[in-house]
Amino acid sequence: MADPSTTSPLTRASVQVAHDLIRSHIHKTPVLTNKTLTQLASTPRTAADLEKEGSNPEWKGRTPARPVLRLWFKCENLQRIGAFKARGAFHAIERLKQEPGWAESGGREKGVITHSSGNHAQALALAARTNSIPAYIIMPTISAPPKIAATRDTYGATVVFSGSTSVEREAATARGTMGLELQDQVLEQSSSSSSAGLDAIITPCGGGGMLSGVALSCEGTGIRVFGAEPSFEGADDAKRGYYAGERVEAVSTLTIADGLRTPVGKIPWSIIYERRLVAGMYSVTEDEIKAALRLVYERMKLVVEPSAVVGLAVALFNEDFRAMVEREAGEKGWDLGIVFSGGNVSLDALGKLFA
Amino acid sequence: MADPSTTSPLTRASVQVAHDLIRSHIHKTPVLTNKTLTQLASTPRTAADLEKEGSNPEWKGRTPARPVLRLWFKCENLQRIGAFKARGAFHAIERLKQEPGWAESGGREKGVITHSSGNHAQALALAARTNSIPAYIIMPTISAPPKIAATRDTYGATVVFSGSTSVEREAATARGTMGLELQDQVLEQSSSSSSAGLDAIITPCGGGGMLSGVALSCEGTGIRVFGAEPSFEGADDAKRGYYAGERVEAVSTLTIADGLRTPVGKIPWSIIYERRLVAGMYSVTEDEIKAALRLVYERMKLVVEPSAVVGLAVALFNEDFRAMVEREAGEKGWDLGIVFSGGNVSLDALGKLFA
Repeated sequence: MADPSTTSPLTRASVQVAHDLIRSHIHKTPVLTNKTLTQLASTPRTAADLEKEGSNPEWKGRTPARPVLRLWFKCENLQRIGAFKARGAFHAIERLKQEPGWAESGGREKGVITHSSGNHAQALALAARTNSIPAYIIMPTISAPPKIAATRDTYGATVVFSGSTSVEREAATARGTMGLELQDQVLEQSSSSSSAGLDAIITPCGGGGMLSGVALSCEGTGIRVFGAEPSFEGADDAKRGYYAGERVEAVSTLTIADGLRTPVGKIPWSIIYERRLVAGMYSVTEDEIKAALRLVYERMKLVVEPSAVVGLAVALFNEDFRAMVEREAGEKGWDLGIVFSGGNVSLDALGKLFA
Repeated sequence: MADPSTTSPLTRASVQVAHDLIRSHIHKTPVLTNKTLTQLASTPRTAADLEKEGSNPEWKGRTPARPVLRLWFKCENLQRIGAFKARGAFHAIERLKQEPGWAESGGREKGVITHSSGNHAQALALAARTNSIPAYIIMPTISAPPKIAATRDTYGATVVFSGSTSVEREAATARGTMGLELQDQVLEQSSSSSSAGLDAIITPCGGGGMLSGVALSCEGTGIRVFGAEPSFEGADDAKRGYYAGERVEAVSTLTIADGLRTPVGKIPWSIIYERRLVAGMYSVTEDEIKAALRLVYERMKLVVEPSAVVGLAVALFNEDFRAMVEREAGEKGWDLGIVFSGGNVSLDALGKLFA
């Protein structure tokens, strides 16, 4: 049982090593800007906005915050298999190939196995196929038929149960590679403008692998990292744990951000909370997620899944976050990196969401 | 009445001049690749595919072509106002500002006027606002309410009728600037692969401004340029004219590719046909456009309008085009640039399309 999440050190340098290992297998996804959304984020909301149905009731009666934000979008929805999880899957396979004795003991023939109902299944199936290694995926019977079909048909994985090497949830280091790219890309792209790189990054938080990985990638750089969650039915477990000082271990929620329904894991928690590498956690309502989703479709022309826009929803609609930016960044404002984590949503599901 | 389309010379060099003029106002939109779509384009279709309902009946019984294609997508759906027409609008205003006597005779105060029901209206409104010049747009009363709202509310234009400088359809040179970028970007991005730049480019053809502009941008480079149209209700006017040797001047069609319902214009025609700068015209059915649209949403995670994917539909489904590529390019294949012209479609319209 190889478990890279426990065998590699969790530092910024190890994120760089992971990046070198997977770079040739993944896309360097584009970093986009958008004038309309940057302007919207830097415009105070109206008192009426803060009171409207679907908004967080806490905002009612507050003076709207006046943050200055310049937004940079890291488009992992354009990553292979449509999500950042391609990074971890290729990393897991490359690490296995490096493991002494794995190939010699028939590891290539036995193949790899994991359990996942979503993007991770497709990602591992692709990474295994690229290396001509069989992949076995344990999927819950309630998995969405298109995700089962893509895993089996498009990426050639099998749905069986034993004998193979377990490839558990990939290391935070692999997911943090996207944070490294984002930092570099903003520096390259902002050379002609007044900004000198990012001040902060906000990412969605489900199991916490991506958030903690991005936090590692920013260690020692001065860039602040924030996490974003849905508030629906207690999906904001990491936020509640973060402010209570204790990890919430179980969650049961049907938020539309279906990639963020899981509680934060133990190793990510150690990075997010115990090592204090995440500077704050914020949550948003279902209506705020939908509003952000619509803006990304109509204004940015990108297909993203609901989970992907939770960070943008915080930047646009969470008055606690916005007031903090106003206070910390002042008139100069912040360059804020926003991670769009994935784009795996069916056209039928989208139609229902906006019907 | 300034009409830049007649006053600037129509050569590759004039496209470069236009590019310098507008570069700071527009996005250099990304060029993306996609392994799934490249693989699909390079896989022969099955006999059953060629016979299925919604396919062109001409393909029935043919031996499926075996082209080798590597696809490069120029994403003008990510351009400002969501379409390539931003290029022409900024060009028109910059040319006006250069015109002797325009400012002195009160041109800035009188403003600019045009007629358009769609992307051009929004583009001119934005370009005018950026220059603090009033814009007046004549829109048909049947225009889609969201397009009227965006033109008026988001970009601050007025819907009035007289006294101002007419800014007619922008020059092909301005639209060809996108072809220049595409050529350069593919060279930059393919430095690590085996390709040495593009062999061909295919773009949608409505009024023909973009197709003829891209053709100008390829003049003397050896890159072949092709046009793509819907076949529904005679929307393939440029194709019919091209092979009959005479421009078709009127068309009445309700193809879902609503940006391509107009007949090809006189000046574009002179570039496309009379100067032989376009190497061929191809058309696709409504079902083929929808299939391409679904692939772009689900596989590329991009929001595009139906008109934008007509070139991709040709590459994937038009057996005449595919057989020509097989014949001309052989086993080595072609690097084919595909232009996604715009992404202005409402979520409601999309829902209906795929319901």
